[in-house]
Amino acid sequence: MKFEAIAVENIPLIRKGDDLPSIICERIELQDRDIIVIASTIVAKAEGETFRLENITPGEEALAIASRTGKDARFIQAVLSKSKEVFVEAPFMLVTTLAGHTCVNAGVDESNIEEGFLLYSPENPDSSASILGARLENISGKKLSVIITDTNGRAFKIGQTGVAIGIYKIKPIKRWIGEKDLFDKVLEITEEAVADELAGAANILMGEGAGGIPVVVIRGLDYYCEEETSMSENYRPEDMDVIKKGLRCLQKKN
Amino acid sequence: MKFEAIAVENIPLIRKGDDLPSIICERIELQDRDIIVIASTIVAKAEGETFRLENITPGEEALAIASRTGKDARFIQAVLSKSKEVFVEAPFMLVTTLAGHTCVNAGVDESNIEEGFLLYSPENPDSSASILGARLENISGKKLSVIITDTNGRAFKIGQTGVAIGIYKIKPIKRWIGEKDLFDKVLEITEEAVADELAGAANILMGEGAGGIPVVVIRGLDYYCEEETSMSENYRPEDMDVIKKGLRCLQKKN
Repeated sequence: MKFEAIAVENIPLIRKGDDLPSIICERIELQDRDIIVIASTIVAKAEGETFRLENITPGEEALAIASRTGKDARFIQAVLSKSKEVFVEAPFMLVTTLAGHTCVNAGVDESNIEEGFLLYSPENPDSSASILGARLENISGKKLSVIITDTNGRAFKIGQTGVAIGIYKIKPIKRWIGEKDLFDKVLEITEEAVADELAGAANILMGEGAGGIPVVVIRGLDYYCEEETSMSENYRPEDMDVIKKGLRCLQKKN
Repeated sequence: MKFEAIAVENIPLIRKGDDLPSIICERIELQDRDIIVIASTIVAKAEGETFRLENITPGEEALAIASRTGKDARFIQAVLSKSKEVFVEAPFMLVTTLAGHTCVNAGVDESNIEEGFLLYSPENPDSSASILGARLENISGKKLSVIITDTNGRAFKIGQTGVAIGIYKIKPIKRWIGEKDLFDKVLEITEEAVADELAGAANILMGEGAGGIPVVVIRGLDYYCEEETSMSENYRPEDMDVIKKGLRCLQKKN
């Protein structure tokens, strides 16, 4: 049993309106059950999510955070406009996005974009994945899954890993609950975050710099799922999230 | 550019004293710069880290936690004996291990072990990785890296992923700092947690149940590093860990 992760080379710089599925299918012959992993950066660029700081008017909350942290109030406003809760204001903004994903700066990005521009994360990553996936399947005639990825930091450790933020025809979590272990004992609590593991695997080839590869194909696994799926299954319910409770506790103390 | 993740099939049940490097090399022909990913479970079994609850005598702190949580005081004692700080007592124990890794139950495991026995995590996973790696290199005559993995939960999301807990001849973090992005801007903060991404990639093949594959070889990448490396580079310094501060804040409140 094995799988391959294959970089899709020579993807050009992406601009608003570009047809990513055609660009991908011109560069790799897809096979049934391939998982197409696409960096959120190029999805957002194709969707036209670029903006200039000059065009952002900070509101009251952004100005208050700016006065406490010394950061650019326009950048803070851009982050707040994509967030439903702020857990940390400095040295980085840790927020839960409107889509339910908890990450730094709501995915607002200053890297790999033309000088003077910033980039929002795709507005609805599951919906972006579905649109891209349906078109990839249509062009290639194959059964495909799609994962849209970003890179995120983690609790307790330095460094970022690739993570899934939007999916199509793959479940975010594989449930081992009820299956048996090597000694015939029933496994009780194991849920494997396969979409994030696949995003991390792809990120190994993607890189962050000028040699960046925004599309990776994972081949040889069978995670294809006909049902509708959503990354929302992946997020911990608020009332069971002890780390969010801890961060709220710290904010009240400050 | 691509890489492969290859399951090493037919690893037998491992017992204390088993020579894992020989068992692996009999089942796969290793190549230069292969990364051998080994589940901590079989490393701990080969090192004889199995124990019975009957043989644990709970101390004062374990009895106090047991009275608050209703859990078995002997199990709590086993976790405490491998931990330097407890952040959450229930519904799971979240601790930092003596080796600096923050995880549930200090890696003490009840799955995939004979009835009546439990399993500690390897005492010093970096040292275990070095011993296994040196012997794997010696038997195969190849330049190899080793990652020992466990599966851990994550902040804000449900599900577990494979993570690195011990390494040999691979750095845990790849630093992109100082490199340039697509538009020639210098990347400032990007550190990629490659050992954890590789552990997650391997975990996709490992599985948790009776079909469990405890060894996966990653082939086609070049992360080989002659210098001595340690997972301790991977852990966030205490004074920069806002999530630990939040969890301590909650404990004081309760």
